Amino acid sequence: MQHALSVGRTTGNRSTFPQWYQAIVREADLAETSPVRGMMIIKPWGYGLWEELQRDLDRRIKETGHVNVYFPLLIPLSFFAKEAEHVEGFAKEMAVVTHHRLKSQDGRLQVDPDAELEEPLIVRPTSETLFGDAFQRWIKSHRDLPMLLNQWCNIVRWEMRTRLFLRTSEFLWQEGHTAHADAADARAETMRMLEVYRAFSEEALAMPVIAGEKPENERFPGAVATFSIEAMMQDGKALQAGTSHYLGQNFARAQNIRFQSAAGELEYCHTTSWGVTTRLIGGVVMTHGDDDGLRLPPAIAPRQVVIVPILRERPEDGEVLAYGEALAKALNAQSALGAPLRALLDRRGLRSADKRWDWVRRGAPIIVEVGPRDAAAGQVTFMRRDALRDGEKIASRSLGRDAFVGEAPALLAQIQAGLFAEAKRRLDDNIRTDIASFDELAEHFGAAVDEDEGGAFKGWVRAPWSRPTGAALEAVEARLKSLKLTLRNAPLDQGRAGGGCLFTGAPAVEDVLIARAY
Amino acid sequence: MQHALSVGRTTGNRSTFPQWYQAIVREADLAETSPVRGMMIIKPWGYGLWEELQRDLDRRIKETGHVNVYFPLLIPLSFFAKEAEHVEGFAKEMAVVTHHRLKSQDGRLQVDPDAELEEPLIVRPTSETLFGDAFQRWIKSHRDLPMLLNQWCNIVRWEMRTRLFLRTSEFLWQEGHTAHADAADARAETMRMLEVYRAFSEEALAMPVIAGEKPENERFPGAVATFSIEAMMQDGKALQAGTSHYLGQNFARAQNIRFQSAAGELEYCHTTSWGVTTRLIGGVVMTHGDDDGLRLPPAIAPRQVVIVPILRERPEDGEVLAYGEALAKALNAQSALGAPLRALLDRRGLRSADKRWDWVRRGAPIIVEVGPRDAAAGQVTFMRRDALRDGEKIASRSLGRDAFVGEAPALLAQIQAGLFAEAKRRLDDNIRTDIASFDELAEHFGAAVDEDEGGAFKGWVRAPWSRPTGAALEAVEARLKSLKLTLRNAPLDQGRAGGGCLFTGAPAVEDVLIARAY
Repeated sequence: MQHALSVGRTTGNRSTFPQWYQAIVREADLAETSPVRGMMIIKPWGYGLWEELQRDLDRRIKETGHVNVYFPLLIPLSFFAKEAEHVEGFAKEMAVVTHHRLKSQDGRLQVDPDAELEEPLIVRPTSETLFGDAFQRWIKSHRDLPMLLNQWCNIVRWEMRTRLFLRTSEFLWQEGHTAHADAADARAETMRMLEVYRAFSEEALAMPVIAGEKPENERFPGAVATFSIEAMMQDGKALQAGTSHYLGQNFARAQNIRFQSAAGELEYCHTTSWGVTTRLIGGVVMTHGDDDGLRLPPAIAPRQVVIVPILRERPEDGEVLAYGEALAKALNAQSALGAPLRALLDRRGLRSADKRWDWVRRGAPIIVEVGPRDAAAGQVTFMRRDALRDGEKIASRSLGRDAFVGEAPALLAQIQAGLFAEAKRRLDDNIRTDIASFDELAEHFGAAVDEDEGGAFKGWVRAPWSRPTGAALEAVEARLKSLKLTLRNAPLDQGRAGGGCLFTGAPAVEDVLIARAY
Repeated sequence: MQHALSVGRTTGNRSTFPQWYQAIVREADLAETSPVRGMMIIKPWGYGLWEELQRDLDRRIKETGHVNVYFPLLIPLSFFAKEAEHVEGFAKEMAVVTHHRLKSQDGRLQVDPDAELEEPLIVRPTSETLFGDAFQRWIKSHRDLPMLLNQWCNIVRWEMRTRLFLRTSEFLWQEGHTAHADAADARAETMRMLEVYRAFSEEALAMPVIAGEKPENERFPGAVATFSIEAMMQDGKALQAGTSHYLGQNFARAQNIRFQSAAGELEYCHTTSWGVTTRLIGGVVMTHGDDDGLRLPPAIAPRQVVIVPILRERPEDGEVLAYGEALAKALNAQSALGAPLRALLDRRGLRSADKRWDWVRRGAPIIVEVGPRDAAAGQVTFMRRDALRDGEKIASRSLGRDAFVGEAPALLAQIQAGLFAEAKRRLDDNIRTDIASFDELAEHFGAAVDEDEGGAFKGWVRAPWSRPTGAALEAVEARLKSLKLTLRNAPLDQGRAGGGCLFTGAPAVEDVLIARAY
């Protein structure tokens, strides 16, 4: 088809998957690289998607009792020193502000050497230290607990090798930071937010995930336990889509976050943190895209129904536009998936066929075309983006105008459910549970391939293991690395019992997920 | 009153106004200074206020055809060079990123000298250059115009002397950037967004403003015309609350933003930009605060009705809480001021009197107290924050529960209108139009006083002038400066004609506003 992407995801052995991903991000007009190394410009359709994600998740975060705040972008270097002392895995690739003025000299604009800061400031790579500092000032008594805060902001982590949405030097995220009186309450919070992420991912993004605990070596530096949700992309790789950390009293001790208990004792708080990022948009692309472009779950599509008027520069154009406008208005008066329906009449001065394909590539769930005959007959002809083709033909359907308006909410709900079911089937069908030894694992995944080459679709393996720690875990990690594999998480849902550890042969204590990953 | 602020705004000659402002920001729990010099922590109640402002203004920005985007935080130094060439007023106080890594050395964390960037990056002080660069790539034909973009983000401008919300080194804002085919369309956009700001300020913030054009010397560097909305604070000073700029083809020429016209010619675009910031929160405080704390217009109050349960650690506490919960639920099912009503049952473990005063200081529009007797009688006792006192007493009123729930939306609308009317009266009554000479102006405003001292309430002067330019305007500016006065804007609404220029005696062409300002 001439209008399909030039790179198809289903070609051959999926070695073209990374190119397909780039093509979708470009053709769906989500984002592009900027003149600033490693940082992206999020374009209107991509940002509209982020706004819908944000709206949905923000509601869930508030419904669970959290409030939003805003902390400074820049953090004094000394704040990181404490953390560095007790955290080995401390990441050091950060943007450092050293001066506060420019000046013109010899006709050239340059950094003013007289304006050097006394203490360098770091562009926030995460805000644990600032929140911790505030907790230490704000929390006095057990009556102040739990303190449940969240922040939506931008983050900078210097990255050498970037990919739009998946790994960029700047990204957008939310970071939750909470303080509690005891371990039980903090652990409950950690699991509550993990469940919020699971529900959000599955219900809003139609992206099925497996929630579980990360192995020790994959913990957030300083955390007692880290949990994640992991989603399967269409190349079989795993995408870590959100994390929730129980930090114990580690950060509270480092930052002196204490409270007076009901019994009058001074005690250290237990803290948590949790976050998701614009990376989720990459996850939506790699979960739902097809060879024609993006397909968006209606719950997060910036526009759920797009109406393309077929105009011929003739007098009847006015009627077609009026008909389309009235249709958009009637649709926007409806509710779909628990929020006002989002319909748009596309008035741009482009050919209608070009508009139609533009919306196909952008993934609008329902695309309506209205011409003079539709307007005269009071009918609506539409395509479903989730069922675009019928063999070589484009599948469309006609309904009376009122019937279409009435059915639109149910159609959108159906598309949402259908996209989830399709992705859920892919996940469920592609987790091997019959791999009994490391040799079998090596045979299944084959030789290591370059990350960007993708290789054949292999899915994940779920296998029993003995949960080794320390050096034994590092050895397991190294063996997996030779196959470009990683441990994803130990699913919360541990169905089966016993067996021998895939790596050590020792008695297994739980199942763990093994996969190639982003 | 023991619970009032320790600093009253109405004491003596208002010399305590700056202290009163700080007291409100602190006591209403809006924000605090952070460990990062000049940058603030916006606390939950302050950030909730920003979220409501953002929600309302974002809707207006979208209704006028704009879409949101996100551009990088960091901008290469070379991008500013072009602008600096043709813009004299170019501000150079900016945060400069020069390195991208930290390292541990001799047990100390420090900037890694081996990780110096080839080109320094500037933390955005505004994003004209990045948007211009994108326009230059994205705009090909007249069909791509107008391009109507907006961004919500954080901004850094190094400030030596800061004040919470009013002037901070980091602030939050929205910046609109648009490109048009001709001057008329760009000028219409400039005025449309000025009107959006006026309506938003008056309807949502209940903050009356005067919209007009800034004099030449107050233009945004590089702009052909700058317009502002100006609000009168309770100390009589002006606060510039939003600006809208028509940039002509100046930025388009500097950045080569061109399009092919319908006639096939390559032409430069006309561009605009416009913005408002978290400074608006300072404006709300200084417009509506009183000696008891903040008073929030219901349209932007994070909570419009707060229910304080009176608990006595007795069995009937459960009934009181259930009654309060049901009341909050019934209220939240209502609509007020065009959006779902926002009510809260305050379950915090504090004394009910402390809670009540906390909400008074935070400015919740309606504060309800429910005790066992209210629960038993099915009634509601409430205070209106805009009419808190009746002489020395606190004024409260009782209504049957259903009557209160039914009346709440109208009460909130009444409070909104009342706060606006009060501020509008202050504005209208305090603009002198009878000052005929500079000597009279000097006499009216009296000797220069230190900005932070405030001085007596003087309001503004509206006077005819000849609209001098260049050196003549600079001379006017210098004379005004000796009185700590500034030209605010020439109101769009130019009622009266003629007369002599207050400064030059030459025939006047329009009225201009003169005031002390933030």
